[in-house]
Order: sequence, then structure tokens, then C-alpha cells
Amino acid sequence: MSTVFPQLAWWDIADPSNSELDELARRFDLHELQIEDCRHRPQRPKAEEHENYLFAILKHVHNEGELRFDDVDLFLGRDFLINVRDRDSAMIAQVKARAEQEQITRLDRLFYLIVDEIVDGYQPVLDKIAEEIGDIEDVVLDRPEPETLARIFSLRRKLVDFRRVASGMREVINTLVRREGGVLADDLDPYFRDVYDHVIRTVDMIETYRDLLSGALDIYLSAVANRTNEVMKVLTIWGTVALPLVIITGFFGMNLKLPWVNDPYGTDYAVGLMALSTVAVLVYFKTKKWF
Amino acid sequence: MSTVFPQLAWWDIADPSNSELDELARRFDLHELQIEDCRHRPQRPKAEEHENYLFAILKHVHNEGELRFDDVDLFLGRDFLINVRDRDSAMIAQVKARAEQEQITRLDRLFYLIVDEIVDGYQPVLDKIAEEIGDIEDVVLDRPEPETLARIFSLRRKLVDFRRVASGMREVINTLVRREGGVLADDLDPYFRDVYDHVIRTVDMIETYRDLLSGALDIYLSAVANRTNEVMKVLTIWGTVALPLVIITGFFGMNLKLPWVNDPYGTDYAVGLMALSTVAVLVYFKTKKWF
Amino acid sequence: MSTVFPQLAWWDIADPSNSELDELARRFDLHELQIEDCRHRPQRPKAEEHENYLFAILKHVHNEGELRFDDVDLFLGRDFLINVRDRDSAMIAQVKARAEQEQITRLDRLFYLIVDEIVDGYQPVLDKIAEEIGDIEDVVLDRPEPETLARIFSLRRKLVDFRRVASGMREVINTLVRREGGVLADDLDPYFRDVYDHVIRTVDMIETYRDLLSGALDIYLSAVANRTNEVMKVLTIWGTVALPLVIITGFFGMNLKLPWVNDPYGTDYAVGLMALSTVAVLVYFKTKKWF
Amino acid sequence: MSTVFPQLAWWDIADPSNSELDELARRFDLHELQIEDCRHRPQRPKAEEHENYLFAILKHVHNEGELRFDDVDLFLGRDFLINVRDRDSAMIAQVKARAEQEQITRLDRLFYLIVDEIVDGYQPVLDKIAEEIGDIEDVVLDRPEPETLARIFSLRRKLVDFRRVASGMREVINTLVRREGGVLADDLDPYFRDVYDHVIRTVDMIETYRDLLSGALDIYLSAVANRTNEVMKVLTIWGTVALPLVIITGFFGMNLKLPWVNDPYGTDYAVGLMALSTVAVLVYFKTKKWF
Amino acid sequence: MSTVFPQLAWWDIADPSNSELDELARRFDLHELQIEDCRHRPQRPKAEEHENYLFAILKHVHNEGELRFDDVDLFLGRDFLINVRDRDSAMIAQVKARAEQEQITRLDRLFYLIVDEIVDGYQPVLDKIAEEIGDIEDVVLDRPEPETLARIFSLRRKLVDFRRVASGMREVINTLVRREGGVLADDLDPYFRDVYDHVIRTVDMIETYRDLLSGALDIYLSAVANRTNEVMKVLTIWGTVALPLVIITGFFGMNLKLPWVNDPYGTDYAVGLMALSTVAVLVYFKTKKWF
Repeated sequence: MSTVFPQLAWWDIADPSNSELDELARRFDLHELQIEDCRHRPQRPKAEEHENYLFAILKHVHNEGELRFDDVDLFLGRDFLINVRDRDSAMIAQVKARAEQEQITRLDRLFYLIVDEIVDGYQPVLDKIAEEIGDIEDVVLDRPEPETLARIFSLRRKLVDFRRVASGMREVINTLVRREGGVLADDLDPYFRDVYDHVIRTVDMIETYRDLLSGALDIYLSAVANRTNEVMKVLTIWGTVALPLVIITGFFGMNLKLPWVNDPYGTDYAVGLMALSTVAVLVYFKTKKWF
Repeated sequence: MSTVFPQLAWWDIADPSNSELDELARRFDLHELQIEDCRHRPQRPKAEEHENYLFAILKHVHNEGELRFDDVDLFLGRDFLINVRDRDSAMIAQVKARAEQEQITRLDRLFYLIVDEIVDGYQPVLDKIAEEIGDIEDVVLDRPEPETLARIFSLRRKLVDFRRVASGMREVINTLVRREGGVLADDLDPYFRDVYDHVIRTVDMIETYRDLLSGALDIYLSAVANRTNEVMKVLTIWGTVALPLVIITGFFGMNLKLPWVNDPYGTDYAVGLMALSTVAVLVYFKTKKWF
Repeated sequence: MSTVFPQLAWWDIADPSNSELDELARRFDLHELQIEDCRHRPQRPKAEEHENYLFAILKHVHNEGELRFDDVDLFLGRDFLINVRDRDSAMIAQVKARAEQEQITRLDRLFYLIVDEIVDGYQPVLDKIAEEIGDIEDVVLDRPEPETLARIFSLRRKLVDFRRVASGMREVINTLVRREGGVLADDLDPYFRDVYDHVIRTVDMIETYRDLLSGALDIYLSAVANRTNEVMKVLTIWGTVALPLVIITGFFGMNLKLPWVNDPYGTDYAVGLMALSTVAVLVYFKTKKWF
Repeated sequence: MSTVFPQLAWWDIADPSNSELDELARRFDLHELQIEDCRHRPQRPKAEEHENYLFAILKHVHNEGELRFDDVDLFLGRDFLINVRDRDSAMIAQVKARAEQEQITRLDRLFYLIVDEIVDGYQPVLDKIAEEIGDIEDVVLDRPEPETLARIFSLRRKLVDFRRVASGMREVINTLVRREGGVLADDLDPYFRDVYDHVIRTVDMIETYRDLLSGALDIYLSAVANRTNEVMKVLTIWGTVALPLVIITGFFGMNLKLPWVNDPYGTDYAVGLMALSTVAVLVYFKTKKWF
Repeated sequence: MSTVFPQLAWWDIADPSNSELDELARRFDLHELQIEDCRHRPQRPKAEEHENYLFAILKHVHNEGELRFDDVDLFLGRDFLINVRDRDSAMIAQVKARAEQEQITRLDRLFYLIVDEIVDGYQPVLDKIAEEIGDIEDVVLDRPEPETLARIFSLRRKLVDFRRVASGMREVINTLVRREGGVLADDLDPYFRDVYDHVIRTVDMIETYRDLLSGALDIYLSAVANRTNEVMKVLTIWGTVALPLVIITGFFGMNLKLPWVNDPYGTDYAVGLMALSTVAVLVYFKTKKWF
């Protein structure tokens, strides 16, 4: 018998394809569909109460460039706790450490510890996202570069995924909070309410971040529009300043009987005309407040 | 009597206009409006409980460039199962194969198999859509071409249709899950809950894909705006570099008493002036960080 | 006594201002506010149950370039059916024909026929709208013309109106489906559920069409942005090709001591220079993948 | 004792700071917080039932360029009706006239009259807004001027305010409709349902107008984008037509050994070249369907 | 024993890390998770009823450039009131002053005063935001500068945060309003309803401000688009006016056998041609209503 704690009937199945899971399923009469759920990952978060046990699929999150969500499956009966996982050995080690430190002797309390550990894992991911959004907001107005755009959309994709998972988790924890009787003792109620507060807060923050990110995208687009406007203005001002000069020089380049051709000050007159037209155009744009 | 399985009262009506359906309607006292529903396709998904039987309209999906949704109508009584369909013979063959393999002898279990088969058919379509979105996301930022736009909108149209169907199916399966008594035995509850999870997941994923796709459209528009901005900059920089040169060459083309005309280094001076103006303009844009 | 069918107490009031309506109101004790509702058109769809009768305001739709919605008011008591209308004589004639054909002898069944006829009238309007959206989608990507825009917005306006009416109708039919007892016999339940399915489908389709139309608008805007981008590129490429040529020709037009002036191949050299600059610019844009 | 009607205990307090209100509060035992509500305007619409009386805050609307919403506070007991208002003497005069005409002798019926009068006041405002939206839609596609934009946003601001008020009123009237017993007699039920229908219709129309207005804004933006596109095209076509001509004239202005210089038909050849290049460019744009 | 009022068992803990809080927790049997909530700030607003006391986390707002939200934690038992806070000494002083003035002797009334004070603090923040939005709306149409954009987004960020907090507070106050029995006496019901009205109004106003702000952003983008369009027009008009002049002057600069070369009025003819082309172009744009 492979238990994590000698004194507690806690099985930690690190590999869902392990035949040990089949043995446990037979021994504790676990439903075949749930065993399938453990093996066909990923599943949606859910919690189901059976006559003799509670089955929950929870989502553990890793921020590795992209967000990765791992299923953690839990079967809690009166005299057994089974968790099935794929990776996440660090998380289980953490739970084990906390359980030893708090000298846990009840299986439902152990169950709570795992749930709490998983939900606590959302906070650092949120903090990282908040930090990235702050970075983006700092640069987006002044430097609307395509890379910033790519960062906005990569973050947005993360939030889309995270929201789906967190909403599912909220429902699951809500089921645990509202349950009546069953394998979880009532004195755990405030603890699960506390976890529920954390999940709600997570969903809230994700919504807030989506709002901020969509604001950042709006800034980006506004900034690009502004910049195009600026570029256009430069082109228009320069072009409009230059055109009269081109026409004047062209005029005096004509092989016709032109005025001033033999006047020694002819060039000065022409240059004077060009200066005048330039000043006129600049004054015109000045009154239009273009620069 | 035409049954699919000799030992089970299962009628598979492949052609809704078949008169056999009228016979069965008379024999099992099926409601005329439901027979009409079978014949006037397409209908919305629905499930209705009657005294003696359960009637359900389900939606089978095919991804053939466009999504095609076929109605599958099911009548389940205590001693009969009738399915009416238009095409979809592959799906029924599949159900038959599974029923033989699992040695099904109950009609309600057979009913579950059909429902499960239909809902399972959504997953490959979702996977294909996810793949297409991935393709689009890969190219949209770098190459915002009209073809990409056309692909985004074709996918969006698919998702609009799929969402409508999947939402309808969710309600139908939910009705099956929440039913009390009736022609479906209670030991099928976990199985229908499992199907329900699949449909919910489908609706979830569709929403997620819509989010991602609307993100891709935003990227597209941002990328086009960016590119227009880039094009404008090129035009502005080249134009602004060229204009002084045009004016200078024009100036020395005038038929007036110009300076440097007889100076052997006149051309060198003029070229020097032109180089200077070019450098000045380029330095100006450099300080403005335009390139 | 003016009845539509001699054998049935059905009054068809084609003109709400008719004094006959007042007589009927006195005779059957109809509420004054409802008589006012019949006369002050248009009203919102609604259904109200009274002690002795059921009052319903339904919306009949006409697609005449714009959508027109006509109120049809119905009073159904145990021994009378009154419908008040403004126009819509064709619809009533249709009901009459169906009633004769099905040899209707019950007033509540007649009431159902009118409701069914009105809701059936939504389908051709939906089909027409679907067709128009198809037309728009066919042209919007390739030819984003202002007329297409005008068509999109005219259709959008139709859908805004239709949705308001159809949502109201959905509530009304839902009231009829969920009623307990009253003047409608229970054997009509499946028929009203069938009508309810039609209204739901109508509302669904309207939402879908709104989605598609908002997609078409996005395509339009994207296509215009794309096209502007294309136009800019053409201008930029041509301008950038031309500017060196203008400068070169200007250069050799200067009245200074120029090189190649007396060289018999001078013009060839100049043309060579111009060809070179053109090739250089085109190669530059080719590497930038502008065409 | 200051009543509006000698025979009815109706107090019309035109100035909330009046000490008479304090007297009435003492006499009829009105809650201090509600007296405060009367004096600290504006409040949200609300209806509160107390042991001995009903308290309601309603919103009267004026369309004076901007929308102005005035609080009308009502206390209805079994033997008293107090309305507190700020301005709105015209509305109260109107109610008085209707009460005299209909020979009202019950206080709750008088209460209904005031509520009805206030809600009836919404319709002309809605009509005015509909008219303004119609005006905007007529001009926005052809003449997308900044003034049109300003009108769209001023109307949008109105609708934002109106919606907030109308939603509040809907809840209030709903409370009145759903109340059980209390100071309002049951025979008023159909009347309050009628008012409720009006408020619902108001909220519906406001939503519809918001939709239409947001459509108008989309048209505006599309029209501006279109127009920019048109402007760009004109510039590009003219520029592209002109550039070859500039280059050709420049070419023959060069002080090199040019062809055709001494040919008496030289100019004709040059002009022919220019005509050819112009035709070529125009044909090019014609095939691209630019005009 | 450290109480704020000698005659009332009110503890004001200004520093959550104070060990006095642990003592009070032991003495009044406060739940450990709630003590943790007091120390791990910030938390979401919440209200929890326990057997012997009520625990609430409220949010006090400060507008210091950015919005800052401080947790105020309250424990209300039958014979004790503990508030834990971080800063906010001014708010507590204010409550103390009001309590003295109104000669409060009940703890639940004191609890109400604190809640009321906190919610009252939202109004000036809302007023400030309304003022800023007014400022923005005044300038955004005429001067769509990047600074205006930055102000819009900073305000938007404030509203995103404020809405999250205010929504949380609404739920908390709603819990207090709907509670049955417990440590709050029933005569406080109208007072908490009054506070509830304030919070609802706050949430309403925040939504309204978000609407207005998103309108301001739309104005900004429309104004930038308009301005770009204007700039483009100026460039196009000037460019199109100038091009014929450039071509004409170029034409007469050609070293070919030109007409009018020896004609004393040649220049006048050329100038006439130039004037004509200019007028033609201007008339063309005038008919197109470009200026």
C-alpha cells in the first residue's frame, strides 16, 4: 500500500495511467467515468458528490511564458483520499510539508490543504500579469510598436484561458461551500469560504486585467492614429512649403521672354518671392495650429 | 418489422419522408407535431417528455469547409427507440458497432449511446477550429493580408452557427440530466452528466475561440494601421529629402543672373548644398526617431 | 351579430375606432384600458389573464422595404373571440381558410390558429434578411462601397426593430405556454409549445443575423483600411521612383558648369543614371515586400 | 390646513425646505430619512412601504436642450397624500385638472394620476429623441461633419442619463405592481400594470435608440474612413498622372546633347510622349477600378 | 482596556499587527481566518455572520491622484465593537465627533455610523470624477491631443478599480439589509437601506461615467480621424493645384522648338494657362465640396 503519510490513507498517484488507480477504483468503488476523467486530460473543473465519496477535478496553474493548467483529481471518502496528478510534485511536496507542520490527522483537512494550495498558486500568476500590464501601460502611449501589440495579445490570450479555468474553479469551490453534510466536516466551512473568497478575487482581478488590457489596446490604436496624423502633417507642411518654390524656379527656367532676365537683381527678386511664399505658407499653418 | 438489432426494438429511419414513420407514429401514438418536426428540417434542438415516451431533436455536426448541422430525431419509449435522420449513416453505424461491442440490451442505454456519439462528434470540429485559429494567429501580425481577413470571418461565421447549436444542445442535455423518473433509468445519470460536461466544455471553448478570433481581428486592424503608418513615413521621409534638391536644381535652372554660373566649381557648390540639405533632413528625422 | 363564422362567436373588428368594439366591451365586460390599448397603436406585445377572458396584443410583421409591425389584439372568452386589427385582412382571410379546411369548431383552437399564423409570418421575413446578408457578405470584402454600408445599416435598423418585437412576442407566447387552466384547453399545450419554439428560433436567428451583420461591418472597415493602405503604397512607390528622376533631370537643367554637357553620350549617361535609380528603388520596395 | 382639493387631504408642497413639511412629518409620523430624501435632491427613484404609508420618489423629465430630471416625492397614507416637489407646477396643475374632470374622490386614485402623468411625460421626450436620431441618420452618411459627431454624442449623453432614470422608475413601478394589500386598493392593479407597460416601453425604446445611435457613430466613422480613402485616391491618381510629365519636361530641359532638339517636330513628339504616359496611367487606374 | 469611548466597548485598532488584536480575538473568540484577513491587506469587501458577532470588511476610498482603497475591518458583537484599520484616522475622528454629537449609546448604531461614513466618502470622489469627465468632454472634440488621451485612460483605470470595490460594497451592504435578527437591531433597517441606496447610486454613477468616458474615447478617435482627413485634403488640394503649374513651367523650360518662345507675350500666355489650370482645379474641388 502506497500512501504519502504512513498514518493517513492518502494515495498520491503521480501517473494517471498507473494500474494502481484501477486497483483503488475497485477497492473503493469509484465510478468508471471518473477514472476515465483522470486519464483523459484536460477536463473542466468539477465537483461531484457520490454516496460514499466526493470527486473533484481542480486546476493547478503554472506560468511558464504561457500559462499551463494541470488537472489535479481528488477522491475524498470517509477513510481514503486519493489525488491523481500528472506533474506538480512540487505542489504535493508543499502540501505534505504544511500537513506535517500543522500535524494534520484528518483526511478532509488534508483535502482542504490541497485545494487551498492550488488556489493560492493563482496569486503569483496574477501578480506577474499585473506587472506585465503595468510595463505595457508605461510604454504603449509613447512607443506604440508592433512588439507592444504582440505582448498585449499574448497577455490577452493568457487571460482568456485563465478566466475560463478560474470561472470553473469558482463553481467547484462554491459547490464545496454550499454542500450539506457529506464527507467534509462542518468546521471546515469558514476555511472553504476563505478559499472561495480567493477564487472570487481571482476572477475579479482577471476581469479587471481584461479591462485594463483592452484599455491598453485602445491606447495603442489611438497612439498609432495620432502618429499617422503627425506624419501626415509633416508631409503636408513640407510639401506645401516646397510647391511654390518649385513653381517659381520653374517659372524662371522657362525659355520664354521672361521679366527680370536681364535685371542684375532678378535673382534677388525671385529669392524674395520664394521667401515670401514660404513665410505665407508657414503663417497659414501657424494660424491653423498645425505646429 | 425493420429494426436495426433483431433483439432490440430500435427503428432507424434514414428518410424522414418514409411512410414507415407514419406507421410507427400510429402504432406508438406519437404526436403529430413531432412527426412534422422530423420532416421539416432544420429544427432547434429540444427535448420533450410525454406520458409514454421522450422526444429529442439533436444536432450532429459535419465540418466540410462550412459546418453542416443535421437533425437527429429520437423517440424513446419503454419498448421502442426510433431515430429519424437524413444522412449520418456513418454515425449510426458507429453506434451500432459500439452497441454490439458493449453488448447493449437496454433501449435507454442505446439512446445514451446515440447522444454520446453525437456530442463526441463536436470535439474534432473544435480541434480543427483551434488549429485554424492558431494558423491565423501565426500570420496575422506579420502579414495582414485580405485573405487572412477572409479566413477570420469565415471562422467567425462557423463559430456563430456552432454556438447557436451548442447552446441549444446544452439546454437539451440539461433537461435530460435534471429529469425525474421517466423512460431513462437513474443509473444513466452519471453518463448524461458526463455528456453534459462535454457540451458545456464545447460551449466554453466556442466562447474562448470567439474571444481569440476577435483578438485576431484586432491584431489585423492594428497591423494594417501600423503598416499604413510605415508607408506614410517612407513617403514623407523620401519626399522631404527630395524637395530641397528639386528646389536647388530648379533654382540654378532659372534664366536669371544667377551666382556661380561662371564659376568652374559652381556645380560642386550646388551639389554640396544638396548634400547638406539631405543630411539636415535625415538628421531631423533621426532625432524624431522615425527610423 | 357580426361574426366571421356563422357557427362561431368570432368577431373580426377591422377598424379599432368602430363603435362595435364599445358594444362588445360592454357586452363581455372588457376592461377599458384594454379597449384603449386597441385604439392607441402601436402597443408592446402582451398577454393578460382576466377572470373571464384572456387579452393578448400580438405583432404581425410586413416586409415592405422597411419592416412594418401591426398590432393584432385578441380577446378570448369561453364563448367569444374578438380580434381587433388595423389592416392585415389577408392574414385573417388565411386563418379563415385554414379554419374551414380543418373544420374548427372551438374558439381556443381558432385563437391558436391566429397566433400560429402571425408567428409563421416571421419566417419569410427572416429568410429575406438572411438572403440580403448573404448578398452583402458576397460583395463587402471586394467592393467596400458606401452603398454596401448603407445596406448594412438599413438591415441593422430592421433587426433592431425586429428583435424588440420578437422578444416581446417570446414573453407573450411563454405566458400562454405556462398558463394554468383558464380559457385555453390543455390539449393545446403542445401546439403553443410549437409556436413558442418558432418564436425562440426567430429571436435566435435575429441574434445570429446581428452577429453576422456586425461581422460584415468589421469586414467593411477592414477592407477600407486595407484599400487605403494599398492606395498609399501606390502613391509612395510611384513618388519614390519619380523623385530621383526629377532631381537628375533638374540637375542637368542647371545653368552651371555641368559635366557631360558637351559629351555626345551625356544624355545616355543621364538616362543610365535614371534607369539605375529606378531599379534601385524598385528593388528596395521588393525586398520590403510592398508588391 | 393647506390642501389642493378642499374635499381631499392632498398636500402639495412646492418647496421642500418649507417648514410645513416638518409639521406634516410630525403629524403623520413620517420617517426622518425620507424627509431628508425630500430635501437632498436628486435621489434615485424608489418606493418603500411602511406600516401606515407608502413613500415613493419619482422622476419627472424635462427636455430643455439637455434633459432635466426633477424629483417628485409622494407620501400616500390611508387618509393623506403629500407630494413634495421643486418646480413642476405645470404637471401638478395637469393632475388637478384631470382629477376634477374624472371627479376623483379617492387618494390612491389621485396617487395613480400623478404617477401616470409623470410616466406619460416620457413619451414626448422619446419622440423628440427619435426625431433627432432620424435627422442624424439622414445626414451622417453623406456629410460626416464634426457637428454631426457632436450631436451624436450629446444625444448619447441624454440617453445614458435617461436610461438610468427610466431603469430606476421601472423598478419602482414594478414594486407598486407587485405589492400585496397596503394603501393602494386592488382595483388599481390594471392601471399600474398599464403604467408599468409604459415604463418598460420607455426602457425598450431607450435601448433601441442607443443601438441606432451607436449605428450612426459607426456610419460616421465608416464615412470618414471612406472619404479619407477617396481623398487619397484623388491625390494618388493626380500625382501619378503628373509625375511622368514632370520627368519628361525635366528631361528635355537638360543642358545635354538631347535628341529632337533641332527637330521642328520635337515638341510634338514630346507632347505625344506626355499624352501617351497620361493615357497609360489612367488606363492602369481604370483597370484597378479606382474611378 | 483601550476603548475610544469610555462608556462604550469600542476598540479602535489603528495597527493591524498590534498584539492587542490577538488579545481581543482570544477574549471574544474571533475566528483566526478573520484575524488573518485583518492583517493581510487588501481583502475583498465581505460580511460574515457568526454565532456571536458580525464581521465586515469595508473599503474606504481616498482620491490622491490615484484612487487608494483602505480596508476597514469591523467586528460587532452584542457587547463589543472592534474596528481594525491601517490609516484613516480622520474618518474615525469624524465618526467619533458624530457619535458624540448624536449622543450614541448603542454599539450597533455606532457600527452604522462607521458604515455610513465610509459610504458617504464615495460621493466627493464621484463628484471629482464627474468634474474631470466634464473637463475632458469640453476639450476632446476640438483638441484631440495625446494628453487628453492619457487623462481618459487614467480616469478609466480609476473607474475600473472603483467599480470593483463599489460592487463588492453593494453586496456587503445588501447582506446587512437582508439579515434577519442578529446583532443589529431592526430599527436600523431604514438606515441601512439608506446606505444601500447610496452604494447603488455609486455603482450606477460609475457605470454612467464609464459610458461617458467610452463616449469621450470615441469622440477622440473620431476627431483624430477627422483631422487626418482634413490634413489629407489640404495636401491633396495644394498638390493638385501645383502639379499643372509645375508641368507648364517644365514644358516651357524644354530645350526644344517650343511655341511662343519668341513671342513677346509668350510669358503672359503661359501665366494665363497656369491661372486657368489653377481655377479649373479649384472649381473641381469646390463642386466636390472639399472646402
